[in-house]
This record gives sequence, C-alpha cells and structure tokens, in this order.
Amino acid sequence: MKALVYTGPEQLRYDTVPDAVARDGEALLRVDSVGICGSDMHAFLGHDERRPAPLILGHEAAGTIVNGPEAGRRVTVNPLVTCGQCEACKAGRNNLCPQRQIISMPPREGAFAERLSMPLENLVTIPAGVSFEKAALAEPIACGWHAVRLARNALAKPLEEATCLVIGGGAIGLGAALVLATAGASGIAISETNKARHPTLTRSGDFHVFDPSQPGCAVDGAVDLVIDAVGFAATREAACRAVRPGGAIVHIGLGDANGGLDIRKMTLQEIAFIGTYTYTPADFRETAAAIFDGRLGALNWTETRSLSDGLGAFRDIRNGAAAAPKIILKP
Amino acid sequence: MKALVYTGPEQLRYDTVPDAVARDGEALLRVDSVGICGSDMHAFLGHDERRPAPLILGHEAAGTIVNGPEAGRRVTVNPLVTCGQCEACKAGRNNLCPQRQIISMPPREGAFAERLSMPLENLVTIPAGVSFEKAALAEPIACGWHAVRLARNALAKPLEEATCLVIGGGAIGLGAALVLATAGASGIAISETNKARHPTLTRSGDFHVFDPSQPGCAVDGAVDLVIDAVGFAATREAACRAVRPGGAIVHIGLGDANGGLDIRKMTLQEIAFIGTYTYTPADFRETAAAIFDGRLGALNWTETRSLSDGLGAFRDIRNGAAAAPKIILKP
Repeated sequence: MKALVYTGPEQLRYDTVPDAVARDGEALLRVDSVGICGSDMHAFLGHDERRPAPLILGHEAAGTIVNGPEAGRRVTVNPLVTCGQCEACKAGRNNLCPQRQIISMPPREGAFAERLSMPLENLVTIPAGVSFEKAALAEPIACGWHAVRLARNALAKPLEEATCLVIGGGAIGLGAALVLATAGASGIAISETNKARHPTLTRSGDFHVFDPSQPGCAVDGAVDLVIDAVGFAATREAACRAVRPGGAIVHIGLGDANGGLDIRKMTLQEIAFIGTYTYTPADFRETAAAIFDGRLGALNWTETRSLSDGLGAFRDIRNGAAAAPKIILKP
Repeated sequence: MKALVYTGPEQLRYDTVPDAVARDGEALLRVDSVGICGSDMHAFLGHDERRPAPLILGHEAAGTIVNGPEAGRRVTVNPLVTCGQCEACKAGRNNLCPQRQIISMPPREGAFAERLSMPLENLVTIPAGVSFEKAALAEPIACGWHAVRLARNALAKPLEEATCLVIGGGAIGLGAALVLATAGASGIAISETNKARHPTLTRSGDFHVFDPSQPGCAVDGAVDLVIDAVGFAATREAACRAVRPGGAIVHIGLGDANGGLDIRKMTLQEIAFIGTYTYTPADFRETAAAIFDGRLGALNWTETRSLSDGLGAFRDIRNGAAAAPKIILKP
C-alpha cells in the first residue's frame, strides 16, 4: 500500500510499504481522510521521543471497513486503544489507561496510509450525508469537548456566566471554541498570531478574534476560563496573565514541558491548572454526534490535499502558510 | 504597648510602640497568643515585598476584647479583612476579594503586639475550657480545611478512597493532614525533611511519616492527592513525581514563584494543580468549631515562648532547631 512515512527530522517519504493487515478481531479500514495534527508536526520536527522514525504518523482518520461482516460501513476512528480492564478504563477514563496505545505511535502505525487496522469498539458509524472530511474532525474536536467538560467542574461559576479565552486558532483551539459555544458559554475570545487564520475563525462563530502580539486587546485579568490549545511556555504565560482570580486554565497543548506558569499568582489568586489529554470514549461519541447533527456548525474550515503531497502540507503548516485550521490528506 | 517589630532582613526588635487603637466600629483586642507562620519567616528573611520594614508581623492570633459592650469575650481571629460587597465576597469567596487586607501587611499592623484592632465579624468566640494557644491554631489549620475542600472537588474519586501525601510537617502540613483524617481519608503520608519533627507528626495521627531525602519511601506515582504545604520548586517537583494519573496537587505554599512542575506529565496524565490561598469565612468558622469540639485531636504540638524572645524563635525555626510544628508567642 502507499503510505507517508516519517523517516527522520523534517523528512517524510511517500512510499510503498507492506499492506496493513487486520489484527486479531480488528477491522481493516480503507482510509479516506486523515487530518494533520500539531503532534504530527511535533514528531515531524523530531521533537517527540515517543514517535521515532521510521514511522507512519496520523491519527485523525475516517474511512470504510473492508473486511468481515461489517464491510462497507463508513466510520470515524477513535485512535486511542485501551485495555478496558484497569481501574482507569473501568471508571470511564480510558485516556488514562496505563496500557493505552494511540495509532501513529509504536507499536501501532498511523493513518497516513491506504489501510489501517482498528478494534471495532473504536469505530463510530458516519451517517449518510456526512462527509469523511467532516467526520475526521471528531478526533481533534473531541479534545476540546473533553477539555470543556473538565473546565465545567473546575469553574466555580456556570459556564454560561464565564468569560472564556481560547489560545490558538488551529483545529484544537477552534474546536474547543465551538464546543464552548455549544455548551452555552458567551463571550468567547480566540487569540491567534497567524492573521491568515482570522477570517475563518471570525466566520466560524460569535468569537472575538485577536492577535496577541498587537497591543490593545485587553483580556488580561478578566478571563474566567482559559483553554491553552498550544502549550508552550509563552502561551502559559499569556494564560496566567489573562486569567482572573478564582479562574481556571485548561491545558491541552503539548508544546514544551516546562515554564510559563506564575505559580505565586496561581496560589494567591486560587487559579486551577487542569492538564487534559485526548478524551474518553464517551467524549468521542458525543463529539461525533454533535458533528453529525450540525451542533458544531458547518465545519467548512478544512483544506484537502493528496496524501502524496503530505510533505508540502507539513512544510506549509510549519511556515505559517496554511490558513485553514486543518489540512486533511486523502490517500 | 510592647510589640515585636520587623526592622529589616533578619532583624526583629522587641520595642515600645504607640498603642493600637480601635478603628471605627472595630474591636480592640488584648492579644494572648500569636503563632509564627512560614509567611512571617518569609518576611523576616526579606523575601516578601508585600511586607516592607518597619512592620509588626503576625496574623495567627487569639485574645480578649477589651473595648465596648463585648469586653471580656475571648476570641480567635480571622485575619483576612474583606469588603463584603464585591462579586467574590458575595459568592462567599472573600479570600479572593480584590480589596482584601490581612493583618501584618500594610495598611494593617500584625498581632506580634499587646493590642490589635479587628472588625467584629472577624472574631469567633472561644468556648470555656479551650485555651488561647489552641484557638490560635484556627488560622493555620483553616488553610488546610480550605485546601481539602477544594481537593474534594478536584478529585475524580471520593476522598475516602484516595491515597494522600502532605509535603511538609509544619503547622500547615500537619493541620492539612489532620483535616484529611477528619474528612475520612485513609492512607495519609507526610513527608518532612526535619527528623526532629517526626515524633510529633507520628504521634498526632495515623500518618506514614517519612524523610523524602532518604531512599526507600516509594510514594512516587501512587498518590491521588498531594497537598504541597511548602511551595518551593523542589517540593513541586516531588509532588509531580508522587501524583498518579488523574490525580491532583493542591498548592498552599508561597515559597517561590516559578518552576518545579512537569507540565508535560501533567498534561499527558491529566493532573490538576489547584492554587489555594487562606480560607473563606465559612472555612474559618468550621475549622474553629472542629478545634473546639476535639475533632482535630489534642493539638498539643505547639511550643510557647514569650513575645520578647521572638527573635530567638525566628532564628531557631530558620536553623531547623524548632521541633514543634508551631511556636506561639505570648505578649
């Protein structure tokens, strides 16, 4: 089969590789659409020790089952494979399973390929009339869905009364903003340094979109809930400046490991910092349902390219030349 | 009146100062007992820009009203003075009041003195048979009471099923451990590097007390709730090592402003970090009630000294020569 193989820092090769085969009891999928995630970019740049070359990246997939009695079923993929038996899984927090695997990380290859093996319980049926491209957004948007659910618990006031700031206007950030809006939050701001993304963000919802590198955007000290969808020291610094006493910072990004938090302020002002990683199976299903029934809007902010042009897409994203919050590759 | 005046880094002078007078509508107290807090030590070392010399420190006070119709009433003092009108105060979160004052910080002098002016609503009556020394512990223990209340909300499991670690065996840490026990937690460990404190800690409850500088104390990765009652980068590092996936770190200490948190781990493992500052009026009253009715144990781990010997007490604490988790000064 054809696949896009990460072969070393800043290198991707579109190549013929051995066909993926269905693992025991799993479904084999023909991949139709697969998004490029910030974590794929992180690996591409050689910054993720969990993703050593050579490796097929990609974990935001939708496609069609091609084996067994369910052949022909169109599905979107929850890429987290968990044991189902441990304390975390039994509590519904499969994302904390010590045995968790995610496709695109050994021992499981990713979805930048024509075929992919997945457990049946990880697949959610796509209704007729919903495109694969839209369905592939379930994975990144589920991260925001999960983050907003944790944020509700961390906030001392109802989300409906909270002022919100999302840092980062990629798919994770925009997805989180759309989930906030669906959840009833008002007063949602999105900070995004890439001005090319502003028109799409502004068009996607009732959002106050601003460039944090410009003066005059006074959110500092006024925000109940900050969702940091970037996760670098600089964005955590911005989150700490923005949050008001008693507020919360929900942290989705995996940019760098240390720094940025003003812990003295967080203590004196009782700021909560909530680490979040991916989503539970329930979050994923609920996100997919919200996508399918239109609650998250038109979701027409993706750009589609051929998998064979994957290297060009990665370079465009790295250089800030990609205006769309999400590029989807088609094998 | 006599007072212990902070006059500059590592300097305290026991001196005669102008008598404190009752502010408008406030009670004038004859101070009987006042504890030395870690934040007093921080100020004494010249590390707290909020407490510039010359200043009377001390905010853990109990005494007797000497003016007005309530003269003779024995009271313990909530040292946080708040506006009562703002959004935070109206929500019962007076500790986040933008106008909050605390005695021992300008514009209010502290309680290392013979007399102190306080609003009546900050005073809680001490029942007959309870000593001033014990009543003065309401302030430090209320910090732990508040922290445990926030921890309950942050944890995904009931406190009764959670493994707990308290970092630091001073009055804040020991108080938090006692509150945890009262709240039903089992499996409470206390880490304390000062071995001289171990016998008192062990005697005060069913606690696993250990020296984190020694090998063989395997709490790492096993703790649902860490209460950091010290608040330096090194203790936050220890907290991050100890906490298990999905767990929480509740941070009371104000040691230093930055560093120590492994934010990548906190994100990948969904660790919550909860900043806490002092207590609400309800927390303070509930803590005092628990002290008065014996729920927090004998509380016989204080050492009493004369206010005139305050400098010696500060030096002993700084040099690790004070075994008692709390030294109480008597004007």
